[in-house]
Amino acid sequence: MFRLAVRSKSSNNYLKSSLIRYSSSSSASKLTADKYNVKRGNYSTINDDDLKEFNSILSSNQIITDSNDLIGFNQDWMKKYIGQSKLVLKPKTTDQISKILSYCNKRKLAIVPQGGNTGLVGGSVPVFDEIIISLSNLNKIRSFDEMSGILKLDSGVILENADNFLSEKGNIFPLDLGAKGSCFVGGNVATNAGGLRLLKYGSLHGSVLGLEVVLPDGTILDSMHSLRKDNTGYDLKQLFIGSEGSLGIITGVSILCPARPKSVNIAFLGLNSYESVKKCFQTARSDLSEILSAFEFMDHDSQLLAAKNLNSIHPLCQEDKIGIDSVPNYPFYVLIETSGSTKEHDDEKLEKFLEKVMENETVIDGTVSQDEAQLKTLWTWRESIAEASQQFGGVYKYDVSLPLDSMYSLVEAVQKRLNDLNLSSTTDNSKPVYEAVGYGHIGDGNLHLNVAVREYSKDVEKALEPFVYEFVAKHHGSISAEHGLGFQKKNYISYSKSEVEIKMIKDLKDHYDPNHILNPYKYI
Amino acid sequence: MFRLAVRSKSSNNYLKSSLIRYSSSSSASKLTADKYNVKRGNYSTINDDDLKEFNSILSSNQIITDSNDLIGFNQDWMKKYIGQSKLVLKPKTTDQISKILSYCNKRKLAIVPQGGNTGLVGGSVPVFDEIIISLSNLNKIRSFDEMSGILKLDSGVILENADNFLSEKGNIFPLDLGAKGSCFVGGNVATNAGGLRLLKYGSLHGSVLGLEVVLPDGTILDSMHSLRKDNTGYDLKQLFIGSEGSLGIITGVSILCPARPKSVNIAFLGLNSYESVKKCFQTARSDLSEILSAFEFMDHDSQLLAAKNLNSIHPLCQEDKIGIDSVPNYPFYVLIETSGSTKEHDDEKLEKFLEKVMENETVIDGTVSQDEAQLKTLWTWRESIAEASQQFGGVYKYDVSLPLDSMYSLVEAVQKRLNDLNLSSTTDNSKPVYEAVGYGHIGDGNLHLNVAVREYSKDVEKALEPFVYEFVAKHHGSISAEHGLGFQKKNYISYSKSEVEIKMIKDLKDHYDPNHILNPYKYI
Repeated sequence: MFRLAVRSKSSNNYLKSSLIRYSSSSSASKLTADKYNVKRGNYSTINDDDLKEFNSILSSNQIITDSNDLIGFNQDWMKKYIGQSKLVLKPKTTDQISKILSYCNKRKLAIVPQGGNTGLVGGSVPVFDEIIISLSNLNKIRSFDEMSGILKLDSGVILENADNFLSEKGNIFPLDLGAKGSCFVGGNVATNAGGLRLLKYGSLHGSVLGLEVVLPDGTILDSMHSLRKDNTGYDLKQLFIGSEGSLGIITGVSILCPARPKSVNIAFLGLNSYESVKKCFQTARSDLSEILSAFEFMDHDSQLLAAKNLNSIHPLCQEDKIGIDSVPNYPFYVLIETSGSTKEHDDEKLEKFLEKVMENETVIDGTVSQDEAQLKTLWTWRESIAEASQQFGGVYKYDVSLPLDSMYSLVEAVQKRLNDLNLSSTTDNSKPVYEAVGYGHIGDGNLHLNVAVREYSKDVEKALEPFVYEFVAKHHGSISAEHGLGFQKKNYISYSKSEVEIKMIKDLKDHYDPNHILNPYKYI
Repeated sequence: MFRLAVRSKSSNNYLKSSLIRYSSSSSASKLTADKYNVKRGNYSTINDDDLKEFNSILSSNQIITDSNDLIGFNQDWMKKYIGQSKLVLKPKTTDQISKILSYCNKRKLAIVPQGGNTGLVGGSVPVFDEIIISLSNLNKIRSFDEMSGILKLDSGVILENADNFLSEKGNIFPLDLGAKGSCFVGGNVATNAGGLRLLKYGSLHGSVLGLEVVLPDGTILDSMHSLRKDNTGYDLKQLFIGSEGSLGIITGVSILCPARPKSVNIAFLGLNSYESVKKCFQTARSDLSEILSAFEFMDHDSQLLAAKNLNSIHPLCQEDKIGIDSVPNYPFYVLIETSGSTKEHDDEKLEKFLEKVMENETVIDGTVSQDEAQLKTLWTWRESIAEASQQFGGVYKYDVSLPLDSMYSLVEAVQKRLNDLNLSSTTDNSKPVYEAVGYGHIGDGNLHLNVAVREYSKDVEKALEPFVYEFVAKHHGSISAEHGLGFQKKNYISYSKSEVEIKMIKDLKDHYDPNHILNPYKYI
């Protein structure tokens, strides 16, 4: 009998409470500017007149200058990037943001727009004394049209709140990701977040119908359209999707939200090779077709990391064990999610699919969720890897697109290189690296390579970069599938983009932000 | 019993032979420049040295100067717009296009890029003596990856040829439209074509993964990426999707092509009111959900036009009649297409849906396709309306996005206005207008308003414009859902876009094409 009940008794509730902010090793607390030897740009420094001006635009509780209160805004959640801002502004309206930008542009004061600050490449924290504009006070749902499924909302609405709102209306936000409890929809759009269900709902370039953006000179671009089709002029909003706060500050989003699936199934499978993972994906794409909403893969070591961190029972555990002992020996695991409108049909499709892949031995073992709780538990073993990768002190995260054929070989190549350089060991605590693990969205050609480390170190960084980027470029991939460039990958864009493309990108930046006040030292 | 066999015996084969080019009334043969009083821009005129240069880039059979051979290139298929070009160039490579553009840019020679020339707004034909660059010789499929479904091809490949190629591989082009036998995929991308199945596969902004474009100065932008996810820099290709040949000439397209559905059903329904059409759509969206691939509506008069033109038996005809006599009296008709992977499941979903909407009297009558031939026949009654609208001499076509609630009222308002102005009659041949009909993609909020006329006339044009655009603006719609701006709607963009948006669009044009050599007198 294939359908095994999920054995895990742990509810892993703590995982739902968004991202955990923890301290890593001391070397990580160094200022970004010093650590990476960055030179401050030729920007003005905030003076009393500036503060007076901001006080005339905002009320006092929208302005933060207290050094203790500034800490959280100055660093990313991994504490890899630490800035030196002296001022956080928390406007409540688009108009206030317009006034602030107009003023800063004239005064050449640099700005970092900040959403939920859940980014992974240091894009949402300052490097020097940039003014942080937090979008947290722009947090209203503006409207929802039940007939068309079009949602309009402020950019500072938390993704999970937006999805909960939609859930009550029978709709779903066409994006889901691990940080949903903290990240803002505006940040999702600004970074063109991909997430867990892009396979079914497509990219934000397709689902975002309109944006409201404040340009660097304070101009408000009101493109909050709510039309699925509109061929009147260049599609300006596209420029801002994935621009990482470098062209304007997104203040409003209009987005098409599909009907919420009435039936969701998860299958969690064990496979004997990466070849089998690919074969399994081919079959799922063909046989599950319109109900396939996620196809995620995880390597064995990523499951060991997760088990160590969760200390609960692995879904495919066959005996009475817990933690790492409960993880069976399959080199690869796959999580398949189906979403549809008719439970019996979805069940039947999934059952037939599983019979096929079990029969031809593409899949060796598996379990299927029986209820909502089990469904969440199964997802946990995929979603918690990011966090589990940090349990030894820190993590170097790479998020790349690669052709499926060469995708996993990157993880193998990196682990081999770390071994060859004598930097890695799961047992010897004197080595900086614990190990490299791989997992990700097979359906999107997107690999997450996590190098779990005991400490952040220049040696490890040198071993990894540009090695990883060179590998990706050689295989015509992207050095950033969904995380963006931010600070971390700013210097490596040429591994994914041609000279002509880079020149065009720089031209656009110069065109819209000639004083380069928006999110300096990053992107490009 | 609800499931009636389709009674139509006509195969309507001639409809498949792409677009029919026919002559309309004499007033339509006037030159665009004269008819619309356009002033020639400050461009150079082609001289012998220019021809020498083009002869050095192309071989002689790639250059057309014979006045008879030029006719077809100088006019659109409706013969509404007639230009005066003396030169057509038919390059075979991207490199040749680069050399041509580089030269023309230096010499300030104006250019019109031309694909299949199936556009509806005069965007692909010259106004004065612009050089026509035809993409017809760039017609190779470059590569197809069966694992990912990513197709790379030249921009001059005919849409139907691309889809036939994919069909053999078990995939489908994520776009379908009436002109598929003639239009080029590059033109589809340049005009951001929407078409019949956007509801299921989304817009080209989501499915196009990469483009190769020659910029006005001859620079080749090679962004032929084949990654579903790539967050490294602004998404440059988006600028060219829907730019109607005003920013660059698209020479290559990389596009994600989904698995071809294994099961396709069509239901053709009769309804008693527009309210019922909306209700039917709501139910289909919820109950057919992931297999709903098209939801098209047609009014009664559009079916009469089609019947008159096809002279075959309407799908919902109850007696032994033919042509217009065979069209029953329902004020509205709906065509629903489902596409899925499992025939029994799709049949069951459709059956349950139909039972529901028949039982609650949302739908009064209907038929379901039993085989491939019937499926094509049913589509004919939707797809042939465009052509049927021209049978009396010509047609004014409007393609707008409107909120569903106010969508059909535009057709009623236009017919009332034409009646009030005494311009319209189905029986009195001395009136310029035959009638106004409405149909379109309810699922996309996209209405096609066709005003069938006996002749093109200034009076009718004045009655329609800006009336139609004002109506659309008042209801926050788009004056061009999918046809684009071209020549026809150039002056009306302000009904759909704000001053800020228009300024940004003009800025981008100036930025990329400072000499305005690409597709002048159009777009914006």
